[in-house]
Amino acid sequence: MTGKYIPPAKKDGTAPEIYRYKLTVEFNGSGFHGWQYQENVPSIQGEIEKAIKAFCQSDVRIHCAGRTDAGVHGLAMTCHADLPKEIEAFKVREALNFHLKPHPIVILDCVKVDENFHARYSALKRYYRYHIVNRPSPLSLRKGQAWQVRRALDEKSMHDAAQVLVGLHDFTTFRSSRCQSDSPVKSIDEINIWREGDNIYIETSAMSFLHHQVRSMVGCLYLVGTGRWSKNDLKAALKAADRKELGYNAPPDGLYFVKADY
Amino acid sequence: MTGKYIPPAKKDGTAPEIYRYKLTVEFNGSGFHGWQYQENVPSIQGEIEKAIKAFCQSDVRIHCAGRTDAGVHGLAMTCHADLPKEIEAFKVREALNFHLKPHPIVILDCVKVDENFHARYSALKRYYRYHIVNRPSPLSLRKGQAWQVRRALDEKSMHDAAQVLVGLHDFTTFRSSRCQSDSPVKSIDEINIWREGDNIYIETSAMSFLHHQVRSMVGCLYLVGTGRWSKNDLKAALKAADRKELGYNAPPDGLYFVKADY
Repeated sequence: MTGKYIPPAKKDGTAPEIYRYKLTVEFNGSGFHGWQYQENVPSIQGEIEKAIKAFCQSDVRIHCAGRTDAGVHGLAMTCHADLPKEIEAFKVREALNFHLKPHPIVILDCVKVDENFHARYSALKRYYRYHIVNRPSPLSLRKGQAWQVRRALDEKSMHDAAQVLVGLHDFTTFRSSRCQSDSPVKSIDEINIWREGDNIYIETSAMSFLHHQVRSMVGCLYLVGTGRWSKNDLKAALKAADRKELGYNAPPDGLYFVKADY
Repeated sequence: MTGKYIPPAKKDGTAPEIYRYKLTVEFNGSGFHGWQYQENVPSIQGEIEKAIKAFCQSDVRIHCAGRTDAGVHGLAMTCHADLPKEIEAFKVREALNFHLKPHPIVILDCVKVDENFHARYSALKRYYRYHIVNRPSPLSLRKGQAWQVRRALDEKSMHDAAQVLVGLHDFTTFRSSRCQSDSPVKSIDEINIWREGDNIYIETSAMSFLHHQVRSMVGCLYLVGTGRWSKNDLKAALKAADRKELGYNAPPDGLYFVKADY
């Protein structure tokens, strides 16, 4: 994760061997089995790779800044693709959007980058947002795109408690058992929580996150918001560094990969 | 439209005859043939009336503040229903939301009102919002919930031109041929247009609007935003009071009935 990406050695000659494009992708993750390609089920990566194949007649593997779970959305996910030839960037965007048309996946932006750029390894910071709709009524316009919480949440106590998670910690409590990261130690740069009417937004950024980390943090902050957990309960759960101390894992619907910084 | 609603005469006795409930409804209009009940096709009114029937075993006709077209959405539409017996308002809300579950229609609020309240005739002011996503890429998360416009729009000139529509005018140019209003003369209280990133919002309020009036105004303001129409062209189209002078009718996807004041 922290290692620099080393591009394959160039052959002699002036023309570059790699025609690398950085794609910014917006997607509605409902109905997909997550970002990562899996056989026989729809995935964001799979649909983009199919669109590239339809456009370039090549099997191209794409790489992204952060693989999202089933049902999680993307506002400006970054990925890169090495295409078999040089094409004007806006034409790549237009062609991919044409082939992606049946799916709620769109290329917002496409730029040509050099071969040192890697969507995963070059990312310096990732941003996530979680959207809670705090009201008794179910969702209509935001169905599948937010977490409806009936019980009144105190967003101020959530924001205050969240600050115990900021900084360098062992996040074992907030880590999925399927997490493949080498270490459970991560550094959270910030967590901000605020309310706009019935909507509560939770934004967080870090160089990288563990699998399920944001959803697990949000789930425990929800317990704080209802008054069932105190700030100290959250601190104790963090210090325990034990998955069994996790209070709650929030559903994927409300989670958005916002963007990555490079 | 302007006449006061006269409730049917009461029979003698202390118990009121009418158990009237004011409902605030949020709905995603995609996939519905508009608010109004029509046989054999899905409508917002039809689904709410079916939910009332499932809950109360009665055929109840509901009345709303403003019937919306196919594909138009509601953020806080007001309607009222006369139920066959007195029921606690929150139970009405819960029961209707239970029966509406398969549909993107939810009751946000329910309060008991007296028989002088009429969702249509008592409304003093209606508010609409139109959402344009101004970017080259199609929509994913807001598919069916906004109008994607590729050409760069100048929202400042749109806002400036829109002010010619404010006030009392003959809006024949901006009126559907199917409009059933007695008069084409309406008074627009305000139109405000602003940008947030790629999003352009158009908000307008009036005591009442003609059929297609908001979409027709937005369509012409879009022409102003692209530079194809000037403020004077818009003024001339209004003065002409002729449907043939309409520049463009915006699609329903971006239109939201926001709320009604009473």
